[in-house]
Amino acid sequence: MTTRRGRGRPPGESDSRARIAAAAVHEFGEHGYDGATVRGIAARAGVDPALVHHYFGAKADLFAEVTDFPLRPDLEVPRILRGPREQAGERIIRFVLESFERPTVRKRGIIILRTAISGKLTAPLVTGFLSRELLPRIAAELDAPDAELRASLVASQVAGLLITRYVVKLPAMADAPIDDLVARVAPSIQRYLFD
Amino acid sequence: MTTRRGRGRPPGESDSRARIAAAAVHEFGEHGYDGATVRGIAARAGVDPALVHHYFGAKADLFAEVTDFPLRPDLEVPRILRGPREQAGERIIRFVLESFERPTVRKRGIIILRTAISGKLTAPLVTGFLSRELLPRIAAELDAPDAELRASLVASQVAGLLITRYVVKLPAMADAPIDDLVARVAPSIQRYLFD
Repeated sequence: MTTRRGRGRPPGESDSRARIAAAAVHEFGEHGYDGATVRGIAARAGVDPALVHHYFGAKADLFAEVTDFPLRPDLEVPRILRGPREQAGERIIRFVLESFERPTVRKRGIIILRTAISGKLTAPLVTGFLSRELLPRIAAELDAPDAELRASLVASQVAGLLITRYVVKLPAMADAPIDDLVARVAPSIQRYLFD
Repeated sequence: MTTRRGRGRPPGESDSRARIAAAAVHEFGEHGYDGATVRGIAARAGVDPALVHHYFGAKADLFAEVTDFPLRPDLEVPRILRGPREQAGERIIRFVLESFERPTVRKRGIIILRTAISGKLTAPLVTGFLSRELLPRIAAELDAPDAELRASLVASQVAGLLITRYVVKLPAMADAPIDDLVARVAPSIQRYLFD
């Protein structure tokens, strides 16, 4: 949470960065993803809002920082959709599964999935990110009146796939080669997105 | 958990039934779905195993009793699959969604979904039921070498659908009419099962 980017920065800057990250944890926790503001986070950290933007860019970047998730689906999935559409479903499922095969992604990803579903106070933080950042950015690439529902259906199959393979570990799902899962699931994703 | 079936039974019988149900909660909790046995449950309740079968039939019936879930997917979904195959995917999704629109099903269903995903000690109870009862019974209707994976893929989309609509409540999923969701998701289920 206090990863230093760049070298040789004076300790004061690193302290500010860590204070901002800690303040973000509290603000997200108290107000959820929607309710938390860069201004509120800056005030809690005792810094200027410009410094928050300097270190973390937008709110989605702060979220990535505090959840310590080594992946940016809100940037990656829209990027995939801007490529050729014919295999977009396939590339999305392959991206998701190959990412989750990496232990660092899987470990944090399972925690984030469990948090979203738990009904705990932290759940709205994850679901807020999903419905304010990830899904709208996917929907924006689709240019259809029902784009939000299409993006949400993709999320439903991706979530179910990750949960049954990596969390619940249904034997047939956990044992299946990635290529097999991609071949079976990609047509569903493709249809939800474009048909 | 102590619902009385039939009327005018002497109190002793009702007591036995309640003791068996309570013993099942403990045995499932300690040994998981796979590890719990009717014999162990009978021993803990201080009754003959035949009495457990008399009140509850098989282990899956005991599971339905202790989870208090007013639905038997392990019986209903195979029944649907024994009907005409052309609309089996549609009928499964409609059955699932219409069931979850009933508050009693939804309330218990959300608890069971959360339990399965939670990583708590009770999680294997739910996942054990899924992989020992529900999925094999679906697979048995398919008559394909990859039947277990097919059934598990159906489970993945159904789980993702229920979680995004009823637990996480993504707005577009929660607002969509059931007919719309059925029309969009049924082809995926149909393909996972039969293509």
